[in-house]
Amino acid sequence: MWRVLSTRGFEGLTLRAVAAELGASTGLLTHYFPNKRALLSHALEELDRRSAARPRRLAPVDGTPPPPVGLARLRAALLDVLPLDEATEAGNRIWVSSWDVALADPELAAAHAERYARSRVALTAHVADAQRLGELPADADPAGLAAGAQAFVLGLVVQSLFAPAEFPAERQIALLDAYLAGLVA
Amino acid sequence: MWRVLSTRGFEGLTLRAVAAELGASTGLLTHYFPNKRALLSHALEELDRRSAARPRRLAPVDGTPPPPVGLARLRAALLDVLPLDEATEAGNRIWVSSWDVALADPELAAAHAERYARSRVALTAHVADAQRLGELPADADPAGLAAGAQAFVLGLVVQSLFAPAEFPAERQIALLDAYLAGLVA
Repeated sequence: MWRVLSTRGFEGLTLRAVAAELGASTGLLTHYFPNKRALLSHALEELDRRSAARPRRLAPVDGTPPPPVGLARLRAALLDVLPLDEATEAGNRIWVSSWDVALADPELAAAHAERYARSRVALTAHVADAQRLGELPADADPAGLAAGAQAFVLGLVVQSLFAPAEFPAERQIALLDAYLAGLVA
Repeated sequence: MWRVLSTRGFEGLTLRAVAAELGASTGLLTHYFPNKRALLSHALEELDRRSAARPRRLAPVDGTPPPPVGLARLRAALLDVLPLDEATEAGNRIWVSSWDVALADPELAAAHAERYARSRVALTAHVADAQRLGELPADADPAGLAAGAQAFVLGLVVQSLFAPAEFPAERQIALLDAYLAGLVA
């Protein structure tokens, strides 16, 4: 399902295509997933799980220094969103793919809105830490800054998916760093 | 078609739904549009046309002062992207809706990539003007700045569509202005 979604999108997601990838019968699949929406819901939950389980840029590992805080942590959290390698590109492809259906489906829309709101809360905390550390201007509104940062990386995801040759990993990182430099100033 | 796309998205776009909106038969529609993709392609072209024809924030009108240049023009061009009213929200809903199909369809993907590249070229010119006017730092890379600005507004579009109550027009504008203030600094 993951492979089908990340290459053909939700529009190309059919029980038949997933069954073919699995080498299973369509009948077996319908036993678990009655329709496309059920497949997508499951894919998004799986994406959440993988996302939470994947080694973060800042996960503490035995023997390594403690994870960064403040601006460095904000940067790491934003980098975690970007399609910097094949796996994160596939994951982002699935997110973008889900927006069409989600916007027309109140339940999926609410789940997405909550995901983004949760992410803004986390980013706001990093911004506030950075302000306490004197890394970001104390007079800026942390929630506004977090919302802006989230908008920036989401839009960069879309641009990068459509024009991967123009937005290789190093350019995405450079653009993010230029954006963060603007916040600092 | 516009109404169907803007409320139900591409996933909800069927010849039958469009025929119902039109009060026409499905047969009449298939005469013009053999499939969903043809409908979407037409919708995107129509969106381009409406977008080009709609009164811009900076269109010169007889008797009004000349359109702004530099930073003010960059700001106006970015504001033109945002879902600040019902019409631009509906248009943006259709764009976001098209991303899923477009990413899986080389021809649509190329058309989208070209649209965004064209828009970056226009934004880059405004940035360069603003630099010449001393409104933006002369040492910044204009193309990078334009790509960042485009990412920012695209991401803000997505956030606003999912959480319209959290991102009313005035907040979108305030976030954009805070972003621009960061570029100036």
